[in-house]
Amino acid sequence: MFYKSSPVGHEISCSMNGISKEFLLKPKKIEILLKEILIKEKFEILDSINYIFKPAGFTILILLAESHLAIHTYPEYNSLYFNMYSCRGPRDSENTFKFLKRKIKPKKIIFYKENKIFVKN
Amino acid sequence: MFYKSSPVGHEISCSMNGISKEFLLKPKKIEILLKEILIKEKFEILDSINYIFKPAGFTILILLAESHLAIHTYPEYNSLYFNMYSCRGPRDSENTFKFLKRKIKPKKIIFYKENKIFVKN
Repeated sequence: MFYKSSPVGHEISCSMNGISKEFLLKPKKIEILLKEILIKEKFEILDSINYIFKPAGFTILILLAESHLAIHTYPEYNSLYFNMYSCRGPRDSENTFKFLKRKIKPKKIIFYKENKIFVKN
Repeated sequence: MFYKSSPVGHEISCSMNGISKEFLLKPKKIEILLKEILIKEKFEILDSINYIFKPAGFTILILLAESHLAIHTYPEYNSLYFNMYSCRGPRDSENTFKFLKRKIKPKKIIFYKENKIFVKN
């Protein structure tokens, strides 16, 4: 397994809000959906871990040959945090993000900007 | 385990460059160092997974009660990607980031900006 990665990979980080609580309270369904999307996008899943918090909330970290996908859900806020980092090339995580978005239909998305990077020596 | 999280957590994402290859080629050492720092900062480690790539490169995903830490190393570029998301409150990941920085002494850090977020409906 070898990818000649770029010095800085491609990242999408955002908080998706206004998602139905019903969906957010089904961790297994979320896990299956995420893995389906990743496989569809030809990412190679090498491993994954997850944790179900009490009273609610779910974290899943998926280790990819191409980097990672991290999801945290906050049912109390109807929101989900999405973080994907990939080394396959520019805009590589976009389709995964868009596919998930179509499935869960968030009413609002707050992005962590990723294009305006600055360099600190 | 229950944290009343903020709607949008605190994230630090960056690429640390100019790190000694000797350090980057020691995954076990990196894992121990990261876990030591997290424990020192009173994060609760719930689980972790990692993968050693061939010919080189290391990914570790650490699931925290407070969210996650993801690290990818790129020895071929003398670089390491750092992504930490935390729900304990503002500036919460900063000490972990600073502690790691002091230990591994990167010559340059490229940050993914996180303060200038924008809202998309």
